[in-house]
Amino acid sequence: MVPRFKEEIETPALVIDLDIMERNLRRMAEYFRNKPAKLRPHAKTHKCPIIAHKQLLLGAAGITCAKLGEAEVLVRAGIRDVLIANQVTGISKIRRLASLSRHSDVIVAVDTVENAVQISEAAREARAGVNVIIEVEVGMERCGVPPEKVAVLARRVARLNAINFRGVMGYEGHCVFVQDPDERRRKTAEANSRLLAARDEVLRAGIPCEIVSAGGTGTYDITGRCEGITEVQAGSYVFMDATYKKIVSEFECALTVLATVVSRPTKERVIIDAGLKAFSEGFGLPTPVSPNLVFEKLSEEHGKLRLLDGDVKCGEKLEFIPSHCCTACNLHDRYYGVRGGRVEAVWPIEARGMGT
Amino acid sequence: MVPRFKEEIETPALVIDLDIMERNLRRMAEYFRNKPAKLRPHAKTHKCPIIAHKQLLLGAAGITCAKLGEAEVLVRAGIRDVLIANQVTGISKIRRLASLSRHSDVIVAVDTVENAVQISEAAREARAGVNVIIEVEVGMERCGVPPEKVAVLARRVARLNAINFRGVMGYEGHCVFVQDPDERRRKTAEANSRLLAARDEVLRAGIPCEIVSAGGTGTYDITGRCEGITEVQAGSYVFMDATYKKIVSEFECALTVLATVVSRPTKERVIIDAGLKAFSEGFGLPTPVSPNLVFEKLSEEHGKLRLLDGDVKCGEKLEFIPSHCCTACNLHDRYYGVRGGRVEAVWPIEARGMGT
Repeated sequence: MVPRFKEEIETPALVIDLDIMERNLRRMAEYFRNKPAKLRPHAKTHKCPIIAHKQLLLGAAGITCAKLGEAEVLVRAGIRDVLIANQVTGISKIRRLASLSRHSDVIVAVDTVENAVQISEAAREARAGVNVIIEVEVGMERCGVPPEKVAVLARRVARLNAINFRGVMGYEGHCVFVQDPDERRRKTAEANSRLLAARDEVLRAGIPCEIVSAGGTGTYDITGRCEGITEVQAGSYVFMDATYKKIVSEFECALTVLATVVSRPTKERVIIDAGLKAFSEGFGLPTPVSPNLVFEKLSEEHGKLRLLDGDVKCGEKLEFIPSHCCTACNLHDRYYGVRGGRVEAVWPIEARGMGT
Repeated sequence: MVPRFKEEIETPALVIDLDIMERNLRRMAEYFRNKPAKLRPHAKTHKCPIIAHKQLLLGAAGITCAKLGEAEVLVRAGIRDVLIANQVTGISKIRRLASLSRHSDVIVAVDTVENAVQISEAAREARAGVNVIIEVEVGMERCGVPPEKVAVLARRVARLNAINFRGVMGYEGHCVFVQDPDERRRKTAEANSRLLAARDEVLRAGIPCEIVSAGGTGTYDITGRCEGITEVQAGSYVFMDATYKKIVSEFECALTVLATVVSRPTKERVIIDAGLKAFSEGFGLPTPVSPNLVFEKLSEEHGKLRLLDGDVKCGEKLEFIPSHCCTACNLHDRYYGVRGGRVEAVWPIEARGMGT
């Protein structure tokens, strides 16, 4: 039975304030309206095709995702231009990638020639063409090739059969949570210089480099203004969370976890039915919407709060802003979209668990 | 397509070594064979009905779970004696609980008379009888009533219509990870004394107290030997994890996350396709099965490792022991049961996401 009002939703549950989410979507779309870079929103945050379609309707250039399984969900929902911003390795997944390319314009990141060769072979077998970009190591020390080695790789990739070489990408993940805005700006500019140096190497090798993809919610207003970047992969802006709110305060928190009070053992202690399996834990404790509560501890199935003022009763429902929206959404099967207290939509989180 | 061999499983994936799991199940069953207390395994760890049935076949007295939604999954799979070791609050859930009682012998914990009254009313409406135990605060400072207040509550609960008062429970969660074995033993004994004091109060009030439920994997050999305790709610022993292994070394790690190498940017750096959304993070980093690898960092979709010796290639599969099995299992949709390298079973984690 679909609940009619927010108070009727069984908990723990993910609630989207639709008015706020729509404001976030419009605000980001507006920012990119007059920029040379386009927005390519990252679906790893919401994992939900209807939200991706809303982003496209507002002018996004395409959608980003993290995993092949997520791309498959998006393509099945009618989205063609999907960037998998990671490497896909292992022969069975590479075959799935080739098949998916027959039904979409999916783009995948590579950082070795061996991986590109395998993709080329699978694509030829599937009679598909696979779009490929090279991931550049821009300072995060994770995946990718350093700028000075990109041209050599691009030359070898571009001449492979059934591969369409499209450009380069980088992710300045090491800059996102730098608290000082000047320092964040400086480090992000440095990362973007590395990516643009890689692009220049590719161009000097006589290879077209249509896509230069980078960025995220934490750096959208730096990378989005950087000459030469063609698209920005922001994800979290759609919902925001307590951690991102400290970095990009112009977006509002649209997502909460709704929980129910299950125990009131002492005057000050409030126990809710949402713990580690309803929130995620990496970025710290959730933030109560009510200023009368302080979050003290998350255990597996319980949240422990301290009541500062007033009273709350067993069975009462409370809302909390997750510390990290992307991992919190990965724990739930659906969103309840609420407007003015009424449940307007129930959206399955279709790409949840599609990590493979 | 069901993979035939472990190497064919697409990643990230949860793999159970069935031989090891069966040894763990047998070892724990064996321990309780000659004890006055019975084992009531906690299904919050595996969330998988077929494993619960295996535990019952080996002599378990019933199954424990954390949530009403988990109990519904277990009952649908034919398990009748299910303890929900938490409070169920809010009228719509209480109605579900009453309905479930018509199809099972479900038992639920309460710690207020108001909650018990609501359950009684819903049970009467549903023409059901609901089994109830009182949660006692044994020192964890979470839910429950202190021992000295249990008799008053028991008297009021036991006389409610459509309620079967069955006993008391406590959880000594604050003792589980006490590293020093003597200190753990002392604190657990103290917690058990509080629970038994509560039972004595109930008995003195002239109310039968059939169930005295407590314990977990970390304290099974203390609480399981404690005179007066009737059942022990151990869960993690089935799979174990890197954290529990330090406490109860007699059980073996049966569960791993299988991951694929997606990038080898430097001689020492290995990047896998499993991050925060494939492991959980609360108890620390996962442990590589290979001694040649050190886990350095988990980000959302990536694990970053340092290679000490030898070589690993892109596309190669590696195994890792999660730091916390209960939350890791909550991120996946299925287990691959493997014996001697062959995939023998694929089991949906049916109660995953059943937190409501």
